[in-house]
Amino acid sequence: MLTPLRWTDGALEMLDQRILPTRVEWIRYTTAEGVAEGIREMVVRGAPAIGIAAAYGMALAAHSRSDLKSADAVLRASRPTAVNLFWALDKIQALGTDHPDQILAMAKSIEQDDLEMNLAIGRHGAELVPKAANILTICNTGALATAGHGTALGVIRSAFAGDKEIHVWSCETRPRQQGLRLTAFELMHDKIPFNSISDGMAASLMRAGKVDFVIAGADRIAANGDTANKIGTYMLAVLAKHHGIPFAIAAPSSTFDLSLANGDLIPIEERTGTEITHIEGVQVAPDNCPVFNPGFDVTPGELITYIITENGVFRPPFQFK
Amino acid sequence: MLTPLRWTDGALEMLDQRILPTRVEWIRYTTAEGVAEGIREMVVRGAPAIGIAAAYGMALAAHSRSDLKSADAVLRASRPTAVNLFWALDKIQALGTDHPDQILAMAKSIEQDDLEMNLAIGRHGAELVPKAANILTICNTGALATAGHGTALGVIRSAFAGDKEIHVWSCETRPRQQGLRLTAFELMHDKIPFNSISDGMAASLMRAGKVDFVIAGADRIAANGDTANKIGTYMLAVLAKHHGIPFAIAAPSSTFDLSLANGDLIPIEERTGTEITHIEGVQVAPDNCPVFNPGFDVTPGELITYIITENGVFRPPFQFK
Repeated sequence: MLTPLRWTDGALEMLDQRILPTRVEWIRYTTAEGVAEGIREMVVRGAPAIGIAAAYGMALAAHSRSDLKSADAVLRASRPTAVNLFWALDKIQALGTDHPDQILAMAKSIEQDDLEMNLAIGRHGAELVPKAANILTICNTGALATAGHGTALGVIRSAFAGDKEIHVWSCETRPRQQGLRLTAFELMHDKIPFNSISDGMAASLMRAGKVDFVIAGADRIAANGDTANKIGTYMLAVLAKHHGIPFAIAAPSSTFDLSLANGDLIPIEERTGTEITHIEGVQVAPDNCPVFNPGFDVTPGELITYIITENGVFRPPFQFK
Repeated sequence: MLTPLRWTDGALEMLDQRILPTRVEWIRYTTAEGVAEGIREMVVRGAPAIGIAAAYGMALAAHSRSDLKSADAVLRASRPTAVNLFWALDKIQALGTDHPDQILAMAKSIEQDDLEMNLAIGRHGAELVPKAANILTICNTGALATAGHGTALGVIRSAFAGDKEIHVWSCETRPRQQGLRLTAFELMHDKIPFNSISDGMAASLMRAGKVDFVIAGADRIAANGDTANKIGTYMLAVLAKHHGIPFAIAAPSSTFDLSLANGDLIPIEERTGTEITHIEGVQVAPDNCPVFNPGFDVTPGELITYIITENGVFRPPFQFK
């Protein structure tokens, strides 16, 4: 099974997702600081995978008898938007121990739980997918973003593994192209029929009647169902509404942040402009081109048809608190 | 003044827009076949500029005493969607002459007329722009796409040159990134404040109240106002509607194709998949990744607030025939 992380010989290895799909390389980390850098540099990405990586980062810190408080702080600071990161670190903290074996066992349990949750999300979500469906998705929400199987892409996987006739439209997801690079990689790996498209093509496919279901992941879900996810997700939700197409969010319950009444309170990470102006180190914009690069957007709950979790499917109006 | 074409010493030179903005190089063409290749390979792009280039291509054919019928045919086949191409070639044909000076004079007159039309479009459009406005645009509709000044970008230029306080959001426009490469190049050239964004960011900027006006060009406008333009334009029109933002099309009257009752009849060019999978020759998708790459989409007239031409501003319901 395709996974983004592997714990080997007392170290955490990350599949370097920055160089996929053309090269497959693993990077080995032995410190919490290293893991934080891997998260920050997006060697690993995807909210659930980030949480798992952070938990293993704490296990590394405990093993080398490093200061667990500062390890926790450096990991917490690595990505501001993904709530799973904080959730996983809270779970480690709640253990109230600095024993490396206990922390490692918790990290492994978080990973195993995530895989089982994704399989449950896939089961619940697959029931919502029409028998023959063109499914449009964004970013990478697959095995590479999680412990395995994936969330939104896990629903697609489960539907495909069942008796559904599936074709996927995979949005490129600029600026970092996780759809074109990673989701395409996973869909080819699993031999699921698909076409990659540029993000600006989704609307006209919908107008042409070629999209039956839209599904995305989530980085954080507020108490009223407002959902932060990869930039471009809100665009798809508005377009799906306009064309009368169901729009689903698939995410484990760890993605919910019930301390936030609504999506306006979710902090949105603004990322470096070179993600837009350079691709694989090649400059594609004028020198000193000013850019704006928010990593996420917020989709209001009223535009969401289903929120699919391991505990089942929720329908609007959402009220999770 | 920035222009995409120059007639020099009996040859047509095209500013190679494929390598802008990082390199400025001119390619010299002395035959209609060469000009057709330049159009096909998108050395020059933008509907009006393509028409002008084709007219000069006919002048080259006449000058070298080539068969004008076959020159016309090869130029007509170079790009299927841009109606200006056919319009310009029809004008040359209507001359009923093979005299090189007469054909050259007509090509120059088409070019000069286009510039004057763009200045008129700019004047009419600028009146619609709020006094202080964030204007969102897509693709390149500027000097580089026309004889000079531009259409949609010409409106922005005219508004900026007047007393309007303008900031531009320039959509990258994947797959070919004409916004990030060319519009950014032109905006920097003219010192108009702007930020480049990825196409998937437009929606959340609108939701945040940071877009006051959306403007795009057109490759072909049907009799009912349905408008074919760069892929992603229809997306912007739906999003603008959802957020209550005016959505304008700016185009010279040569863009109208009144032989078509509506946009469903406009042929949409499907382009090579490598435009999506490769950027500057660098592969960014898995080997053999299947893609879908329509070059254009059609925006229904009912989503368009204004159609701005050199003859004035039209408002829905549109009926041009």
